[in-house]
Amino acid sequence: VHERPQSRSVALRSSYAQRGMSLEAEINASNQYYLANHIAVIHKKPTPVQLVKVDYPKRSAAVIREAYFKQPSTTDYNGIYKGWYIDFDAKETRNKASFPLKNFHEHQIRHMRECVDQGGICFALIRFVELDQMYVFPATSLFEYWQRQLHGGRKSIPLTAIIQDGYPVQYGLNPRLHYLTAVDQLIAAKKH
Amino acid sequence: VHERPQSRSVALRSSYAQRGMSLEAEINASNQYYLANHIAVIHKKPTPVQLVKVDYPKRSAAVIREAYFKQPSTTDYNGIYKGWYIDFDAKETRNKASFPLKNFHEHQIRHMRECVDQGGICFALIRFVELDQMYVFPATSLFEYWQRQLHGGRKSIPLTAIIQDGYPVQYGLNPRLHYLTAVDQLIAAKKH
Ligand SMILES: [Mg+2]
Ligand SMILES: [Mg+2]
Repeated sequence: VHERPQSRSVALRSSYAQRGMSLEAEINASNQYYLANHIAVIHKKPTPVQLVKVDYPKRSAAVIREAYFKQPSTTDYNGIYKGWYIDFDAKETRNKASFPLKNFHEHQIRHMRECVDQGGICFALIRFVELDQMYVFPATSLFEYWQRQLHGGRKSIPLTAIIQDGYPVQYGLNPRLHYLTAVDQLIAAKKH
Repeated sequence: VHERPQSRSVALRSSYAQRGMSLEAEINASNQYYLANHIAVIHKKPTPVQLVKVDYPKRSAAVIREAYFKQPSTTDYNGIYKGWYIDFDAKETRNKASFPLKNFHEHQIRHMRECVDQGGICFALIRFVELDQMYVFPATSLFEYWQRQLHGGRKSIPLTAIIQDGYPVQYGLNPRLHYLTAVDQLIAAKKH
């Protein structure tokens, strides 16, 4: 029997109506707070899209009629804070004891390595959903676990290691995620 | 007579097949050179798109079926170079004696102001197409002309001022645009 391909079509209310929305929305709200209060300038990069067909109706805005999501070549967030170049990605897991490395892509690790080599402050913002805990985990520690994994080591970072090398992020009202306070600690540790 | 709206549909070979392509392609090629040679990590941000309708066919990639271009809230390029946060926009003009300020948007100026306040290196990469000349023009000088314009001053930056406050960019084979050499001069001037 020839199986007919099915497709479903989804009308989105906004570009946030995608997977990972809540963490992204919280980070964006925090970044807006930081921006409005002249604390830092950090933005999420737009999702890259490969355009195939664009309509240009007379008298109205161009309409993209066929396009595809592209694999981002960098991390999701970057910007500047107290003169420091900041670069990070945000990830969450429902695991309770470790963070699976498969959540990272080779190109994100490579990009963070390049930024660290230039003197940037790079990290993963890791949320343990079930534990309601969040950490700024330095890229330099992440690289160690990534390398070990490539050489047959474990495929996840234990929570104990994240607690030891990382910095906890406090929840608040404004900003929602006070992640730059954890970044202050990362910067202080880097200076020593 | 009811005028029927006409529309034209354009099949794009790639997302570069848009206005301003050649300058953008040259900057991207230079950034790839800088990246491959561990000189700097600078990327063009993807064009932001507002998704309206996305199809998820079984067994193949999601297809964007309706989307619109959004106004970017920042500049086009950012990254890190020798520890410095770098942020700029690229512009070109066919004018021979001045650069029209209407090529900048209020939100780009505001964004560069915020980045300069955080200690970033911000500038406009300005190409005079007919003169075959290009300059790194510091954001701090740009702000002065922008402010004057808002208070009834001239609506363009004279080439003489761009030559005086800016740094010429040399063309080469690899990288095509050696704009970081001009940025070195901007950084050196900032330190004094
Ligand atoms: Mg992500
Ligand atoms: Mg531009």
